[in-house]
Amino acid sequence: MTLRNKTRIEQLMDDIRQQIASRALTPGSRLPSVRARAQSAGISVSTVVEAYDRLEAESVIVSRPGAGFFVSGPIAPLDLAQLAPTVERDVDPLWITRQALDAAPDRPKPGCGWMPPEWMYEEGIRRALRKAARSESALLTDYAVPAGSAELRQLLTRRLAAYGLSATPDQLLLTDSGTHSIDLICRFLLEPGDTVLVDDPCYFNFHALLRAQRVQVVGIPWTLQGPDLAAFQQALTQHAPRLYITNSGIHNPTGGTLSPTTAHRLLKIAENSDLVIVEDDIFADLETHTAPRLAALDGFARVMVIGSFSKTVSASVRCGYIAAKPTWVEKLIDMKIATGFSSGRLAADLLLNVLKDSGYRRHLEAIKLRLADSRRQVMQRLGEVGIRPWLVPQSGLFLWCELPEGLDAAEFSRACLRQGVVLAPGNTFSQSGSCDRFLRFNVSQCGDERIYRVLKDVIQS
Amino acid sequence: MTLRNKTRIEQLMDDIRQQIASRALTPGSRLPSVRARAQSAGISVSTVVEAYDRLEAESVIVSRPGAGFFVSGPIAPLDLAQLAPTVERDVDPLWITRQALDAAPDRPKPGCGWMPPEWMYEEGIRRALRKAARSESALLTDYAVPAGSAELRQLLTRRLAAYGLSATPDQLLLTDSGTHSIDLICRFLLEPGDTVLVDDPCYFNFHALLRAQRVQVVGIPWTLQGPDLAAFQQALTQHAPRLYITNSGIHNPTGGTLSPTTAHRLLKIAENSDLVIVEDDIFADLETHTAPRLAALDGFARVMVIGSFSKTVSASVRCGYIAAKPTWVEKLIDMKIATGFSSGRLAADLLLNVLKDSGYRRHLEAIKLRLADSRRQVMQRLGEVGIRPWLVPQSGLFLWCELPEGLDAAEFSRACLRQGVVLAPGNTFSQSGSCDRFLRFNVSQCGDERIYRVLKDVIQS
Repeated sequence: MTLRNKTRIEQLMDDIRQQIASRALTPGSRLPSVRARAQSAGISVSTVVEAYDRLEAESVIVSRPGAGFFVSGPIAPLDLAQLAPTVERDVDPLWITRQALDAAPDRPKPGCGWMPPEWMYEEGIRRALRKAARSESALLTDYAVPAGSAELRQLLTRRLAAYGLSATPDQLLLTDSGTHSIDLICRFLLEPGDTVLVDDPCYFNFHALLRAQRVQVVGIPWTLQGPDLAAFQQALTQHAPRLYITNSGIHNPTGGTLSPTTAHRLLKIAENSDLVIVEDDIFADLETHTAPRLAALDGFARVMVIGSFSKTVSASVRCGYIAAKPTWVEKLIDMKIATGFSSGRLAADLLLNVLKDSGYRRHLEAIKLRLADSRRQVMQRLGEVGIRPWLVPQSGLFLWCELPEGLDAAEFSRACLRQGVVLAPGNTFSQSGSCDRFLRFNVSQCGDERIYRVLKDVIQS
Repeated sequence: MTLRNKTRIEQLMDDIRQQIASRALTPGSRLPSVRARAQSAGISVSTVVEAYDRLEAESVIVSRPGAGFFVSGPIAPLDLAQLAPTVERDVDPLWITRQALDAAPDRPKPGCGWMPPEWMYEEGIRRALRKAARSESALLTDYAVPAGSAELRQLLTRRLAAYGLSATPDQLLLTDSGTHSIDLICRFLLEPGDTVLVDDPCYFNFHALLRAQRVQVVGIPWTLQGPDLAAFQQALTQHAPRLYITNSGIHNPTGGTLSPTTAHRLLKIAENSDLVIVEDDIFADLETHTAPRLAALDGFARVMVIGSFSKTVSASVRCGYIAAKPTWVEKLIDMKIATGFSSGRLAADLLLNVLKDSGYRRHLEAIKLRLADSRRQVMQRLGEVGIRPWLVPQSGLFLWCELPEGLDAAEFSRACLRQGVVLAPGNTFSQSGSCDRFLRFNVSQCGDERIYRVLKDVIQS
């Protein structure tokens, strides 16, 4: 139900439910009196009376005669969808993700964030699986060591060195995924109510993850050189944020990169603050030119790097990493043990063998050429219906495109979904609502003719 | 450093550090005046002055002349070890886990919670790996569906039915492990400061996990019939707990089981409360007699069941599950996506193929006989040095044993560790301190002669 269709009563009921879901109102706490609520919300007393009565009928609140209305126990389970009720479902990260993950294999999903199976290095995985089948028992059945495979951590330090990141194996821990890495870091650093900075727009699952952390999120507009430094400075002064989560390498969703000047100046701005920065580096292997890494300039003093190989090797084999200073790594390992006990030993071994496989590098070179080709073709086809990219990326999966004037990306996506095509509308990536005419296209998922037929059809209707 | 060796100054500094680590004192908040602190702690003013000065030298606190001492920002990262500073390292769950996971393969670890590789169904894993190597690309490289493999969920519902648990596939979601399952449930249901009930003693990683959730933990003494129902009733009345986490099947660490009467009465006691119960069922496949499942009596109204196959199939292939009512499953899937994006598709497929493998059932039958044999032998050998079990379990890995009079299990474990044997002292499993003479032995890890030599040696010294 969109906002304009709700009655005042329903809107008030939703507001109260959301206050309860977000624990702004806890069980046993007293609601404002009918009169006070009516006054502060600028609505009639009868509206409030009706809303309170309906909520009482649903047992969400309970009235104690002479005392007022109180929130019923127990505390509501954490409903991440309910925590952002003003976010329409069409641009809700959780709903978008479900659409993409649940879609049948043949369903075109030009908005999704991963490559089709045939673009991934599957022969490497097959080879690694056969090798694992012949390996010693402990690999197949035993737990991993707390930090995760020493050999994989060593290999990762060598890969990081190629980006100017100087790390020793005790500065790495293995996790289950890039998302798991960021989640561990958030649980380690954040308190409910803290402020976290993200790019605007940013990878949409950051918004869902930060909802679970119960923090305030402030978006820093992304420019052609990276984050808007004036806005960044302002946010530091105004909000004293604890964390800034960004991409290094290739920005999701714009495909842009951080300029060396921006990287250097950003760290200078952060210098006298307590800000910790997380660089999400999961698209590193798709880069054609090496962008600056904040951690390379900072030396892991306040920056942590996270990554995985879900985007280039396999999303099915779950393995990620965190690179950070050793004191933090030790505590993150404790957090990992307490909340998940162990990351996958077999998964780490499979990944290790793929990364050691000489065919992987050749595969990446071929994929990068293929992506460049597809990028050109997709820009051409989209241009034919008036959909144009905000910038032309040097590398990566994405084209961040603007719809022709007058079209709303959420409505547009809804219409395309009705015809079987799953898009990624801009406001999923942005809480500021400034991306309502944008869509993210994944050039490796745009081969299906049906996509262009549907786009043309919806634009013309 | 044990408590008796710390000076008063060091003790006060540790107390203050712990208040900061637990966020009882937050950055910017003012510490008690020197005089007030001295008075309330019953120590001299000079002690407090020295402690405050040393903390200021470390930049933990800062003095503002005329105003007092204040906690320095930023908020300390969450140090799970620091959150329980009164727990001696020797019985700290995180330290115990690290000892066991880091131990060289040939190091005897009779206290650990898993079977050696040669007891696990490795041939099933090998077969499944070879099959996976020949499978379609999507299995090897693509994300899982949000709830996890439909086929595995269906198979799990059939397995659960054997325990009287009537669930449909939409009542299941796959996770990365049993610990991950419980962690998702905790994040879903709990607020910092909530009370959670556990058995006393219980699986020690519950204590570490609940530290990360910042909840108050109350232990319910475990009796020969299961939880002490009078204590359970009292805890419900006194604490209004939100969650009770327990084992179904075989209790960890005692090896005991819930009696049908206790199961029924426990649910009746909980009837008018908001308590949610989580049954951790990870040892199900080792049962020789089927114990009652609370969820079978309750029908998933307030009970959730979690499990994995880490204990019988593989700890290296990470896959667990949650069974609960559908509305909760949906929200738990959202939590899973937000914080980890996807559970392992390949891991679920490998596990599915092992569970479908007819050899697995035969393997389990052989293992249960082997465990029964080992249990008898280990009880005999331990009895020779005066170490006796609290009860003789019908099934499972564990013997929960009492040391001879006068011996402290933590000191005993420390002494054995110096000789290379990794034990699990009782107070790791119990916050009440009532298990200081107990040790948990894993009968599948007691084959090494060195163990008995060291035990005898330490007892006699």
